[in-house]
Amino acid sequence: MPAPSRLFRLSADGPVLDGIPEHGRVPRYYAVKVELLAVIAELGEGAVLPTERELCERFEVSRATVRQAVAELVLEGRLSRRQGSGTYIAGPKLVQPLAPTGRRPGIRPGRTAITLERRPAGRALAADLRVTSDAEVFHLERVLLAGDERVGLESTYLLASRCPDLLEVFVPEQPLNEQLGVEPAGAEERVETVLATPREALLIGTNPALPMLLTHRISWGPDGVPFERVRSLYRGDRLSFTTRLGG
Amino acid sequence: MPAPSRLFRLSADGPVLDGIPEHGRVPRYYAVKVELLAVIAELGEGAVLPTERELCERFEVSRATVRQAVAELVLEGRLSRRQGSGTYIAGPKLVQPLAPTGRRPGIRPGRTAITLERRPAGRALAADLRVTSDAEVFHLERVLLAGDERVGLESTYLLASRCPDLLEVFVPEQPLNEQLGVEPAGAEERVETVLATPREALLIGTNPALPMLLTHRISWGPDGVPFERVRSLYRGDRLSFTTRLGG
Repeated sequence: MPAPSRLFRLSADGPVLDGIPEHGRVPRYYAVKVELLAVIAELGEGAVLPTERELCERFEVSRATVRQAVAELVLEGRLSRRQGSGTYIAGPKLVQPLAPTGRRPGIRPGRTAITLERRPAGRALAADLRVTSDAEVFHLERVLLAGDERVGLESTYLLASRCPDLLEVFVPEQPLNEQLGVEPAGAEERVETVLATPREALLIGTNPALPMLLTHRISWGPDGVPFERVRSLYRGDRLSFTTRLGG
Repeated sequence: MPAPSRLFRLSADGPVLDGIPEHGRVPRYYAVKVELLAVIAELGEGAVLPTERELCERFEVSRATVRQAVAELVLEGRLSRRQGSGTYIAGPKLVQPLAPTGRRPGIRPGRTAITLERRPAGRALAADLRVTSDAEVFHLERVLLAGDERVGLESTYLLASRCPDLLEVFVPEQPLNEQLGVEPAGAEERVETVLATPREALLIGTNPALPMLLTHRISWGPDGVPFERVRSLYRGDRLSFTTRLGG
């Protein structure tokens, strides 16, 4: 059994600590980050993190080192900063299903509409919706809320021909599909990680260049014809997605 | 129709440019980033990006500004740096389905095994697999390859009771399920974005603190009993996931 024995030699020195390179050179900031995770677990959600100075003294490291460790924990959503009132232990990330409709069960679906415009599809969108690029679409842009917290930004592009009376029936806070009685038969969704643009950061109320989860969804009707494209951007430090496959 | 009219006033000044705050203060680095996206489109995949100095002169900005714009484009996978040989226009992100089995169609499934160990499940894993925390699991850790490129790191935790003869049948390069004849009836997968740990960055050959896509998958058999937990970490600058819902 050559493979197993070779593998056993590879793991002869036992399990490798997560985050610790085999060659043993552990970056100082990362060691502090690991220590801070223990502090976070001990203090619990909502508690205030000790000051930079206290942490420098406790771990006997420089401010720069503490700052790097804290900055990563903020980006990862383990810590959160509040203007002028220090750094707090954050709650767990919200979990929500990748879903074929506008409804996102994980989030109390608060929405604040900021843009509604009627415009030509343009080439890329036209290709997705299988129409000519001068076909008209509604573009609806809404800030997504989880309770009172701004967690994302959603742009919905809907074929105007599918909902000529959108302006009569539209209610900003509700998912579009329900208002239009359009029930998608299926959808394809793509997930990636991107950095927030300055405008997006401004609208969601976070830092530019925060890692975000970006989803692109194309929905089609019972006829199999696409009618909607939705681009949703979520705070990577606050959201995660689940999908269930099979029985 | 109060809602529509209010919305129309909101969008009276027409479509808002992506990335540009309404109040009009466009960060310098972001303006350069937008310019660079045009340069990237024009030069095309594999081309070399002009030097920092050239970009400073072309856009009449400081090196620091150019560096911030380039750094974000590298994190987002639009540009890639090669040791000592400059910055290149990167190819598109790989797209792959969120799948219930070890097979990931989007990626030519190259794998390099780096750890194989037999150990007690421990509390968290035991809860996921519905066993006692002293139940034995195999932990198999493999670097994921797309062709020759290292794109991820996969940790598989498999109940030893389900595959007592793992070491006899194991082939490092192949998905475990196939080798064991264990075909999952279903799975639940969770996706979030995290930063690479120094060890992960070392193993995947990227920078620490690069935004990564992290998936956690729990698979169960026809009996509905979980038998496997897989933690997969993918380069956020190289991978995206798709999931199809409904017909």
